[in-house]
Amino acid sequence: MSQDAIPRRVTIREVGLRDGLQSIATIVPTEHKLQWLRDAVAAGQRESEVGSFVPPRLMPQLADTEEVLAFAKTLPGLRASVLVPNLRGAERALDGDADLMILPLSASQAHSLANLRKTPDDVVAELARIRAARDASGRKTLIEGGVGTAFGCTIQGRVEESEVLRLMQALLDAGADRVSLADTVGYADPGSVSRLFEKALKIAGDRFCCGHFHDTRGLALVNVHAALQLGVDRFDASLAGIGGCPHAPGASGNASTEDLAFMLAAMGIETGLDIQALLALRARVAGWIEGEPTHGALWRAGLPKTFVAPAALA
Amino acid sequence: MSQDAIPRRVTIREVGLRDGLQSIATIVPTEHKLQWLRDAVAAGQRESEVGSFVPPRLMPQLADTEEVLAFAKTLPGLRASVLVPNLRGAERALDGDADLMILPLSASQAHSLANLRKTPDDVVAELARIRAARDASGRKTLIEGGVGTAFGCTIQGRVEESEVLRLMQALLDAGADRVSLADTVGYADPGSVSRLFEKALKIAGDRFCCGHFHDTRGLALVNVHAALQLGVDRFDASLAGIGGCPHAPGASGNASTEDLAFMLAAMGIETGLDIQALLALRARVAGWIEGEPTHGALWRAGLPKTFVAPAALA
Repeated sequence: MSQDAIPRRVTIREVGLRDGLQSIATIVPTEHKLQWLRDAVAAGQRESEVGSFVPPRLMPQLADTEEVLAFAKTLPGLRASVLVPNLRGAERALDGDADLMILPLSASQAHSLANLRKTPDDVVAELARIRAARDASGRKTLIEGGVGTAFGCTIQGRVEESEVLRLMQALLDAGADRVSLADTVGYADPGSVSRLFEKALKIAGDRFCCGHFHDTRGLALVNVHAALQLGVDRFDASLAGIGGCPHAPGASGNASTEDLAFMLAAMGIETGLDIQALLALRARVAGWIEGEPTHGALWRAGLPKTFVAPAALA
Repeated sequence: MSQDAIPRRVTIREVGLRDGLQSIATIVPTEHKLQWLRDAVAAGQRESEVGSFVPPRLMPQLADTEEVLAFAKTLPGLRASVLVPNLRGAERALDGDADLMILPLSASQAHSLANLRKTPDDVVAELARIRAARDASGRKTLIEGGVGTAFGCTIQGRVEESEVLRLMQALLDAGADRVSLADTVGYADPGSVSRLFEKALKIAGDRFCCGHFHDTRGLALVNVHAALQLGVDRFDASLAGIGGCPHAPGASGNASTEDLAFMLAAMGIETGLDIQALLALRARVAGWIEGEPTHGALWRAGLPKTFVAPAALA
């Protein structure tokens, strides 16, 4: 782990439209979601989760995922991903020609059974079915296996590192194009991130694609920093820090996109994002979800007088 | 910079009773300050700023510093420090037998003139006079030269690294026992912290004692992480994150003591602090200053189910 490994270019994958909006009661109209995507792309965003192919009755906030995905596909330069809970969802993602579909797996047996009514190994088997469907479809939709509760679980408590790594390997063996790690409940710290990510990178190599950190206990950005130092170059974040299933009223959710973009830019790391444009978009999004908890620090403080955006890389 | 340099033991110096209380309108009664100190020591706090020897008419919130210092000196195991703006303040600190007095210097010429009506070099000269007074007094009060606006300034903008380092060297040459660096306005990022602290440590060696970071843009803890990786083992922080002269309404102030204590403990670093006791004290302090902005994440979320406090070091 060193300064030298820090990548010069990092992609922030926006998860506000999925992880963010699924966690709040307000149902944001489709037209606002489309405006969000349009403005995000104008602000330089290159990747975004746009929704989730779960049954609409379970998650009415994301019932328009098909339409949002279709619109996202029209935006040049945007890679649109969707969450899929199972083969049925994956088929919808393939129908919509998503660039990427993410199958979440919870490394905590207890959390997996409580939330998905499946064991983690059942989810691995589902990924193999999804891979077969993708290959048969002729679509180029990438498959990401996202290992959640990777740092512990509010139900089960401890989640063994060896179990997280075993499941990551199993997802790769079952045909995942990529894997990622998520600190679903905000239990990670820079030490545990360094330890687990180092091992995960050894297993997955270039197929390790993303770190997903929650700011539940204020450590999202420092956890990103620990992963950056291992060369990880893609992180999930949510505008205004919405979502992230906080387990306490008012607790912070996802890493906030604008604060993360600021940290990376201040470090001279290119993200392609125009932070002032992001802050303007944040203000619009906060207006649409008025009354819902939002997070982050930069929107209050503004950019430092000394701030200089990193030069775009070739 | 590496994981290996991370110290096994870190001291969090509480600055809430000085930096925190001077920044809010509420005047906390002396008896509450004494209770704060008593409870902080019971929670394992080893060092605390207890006030500032500025003229009481300028800072009525800290007018009782003499009494608070006298009480702090009775608490076993607590190192009590005070801020002194000049020789007159230092004489009061010596009279009160403070363990440490901190003379702040602003590396920004513009900030220094606006806030102290002195150039940075005038402050260096004042430190030499303070050193002479200390030596003549027979007291053991240590002298810390604290270089502020070390990462930039809201008035002047850029502050050159070379100027920060020149002034740090000048403070040491003038007789400072220790020096520290402060990101007074929340402009630092992990990259600039690594660069500046590495050079500062080369200059000051063991006489470099402390990093002081503001959470104005959400980067206080990640900046601590960058400094930790260089072996820095003392950080200022404030319970509930109060203070830190935020320059925007609602902006965060100092690193929050409880969040920092949690991060360090999660990393296996011994701080001596009992986090549950700190959280209980935080709740009392927040009650005393009701209506004032407070910050931090841990108090809402609570400790992870998997949390284990690091073993005390011999």
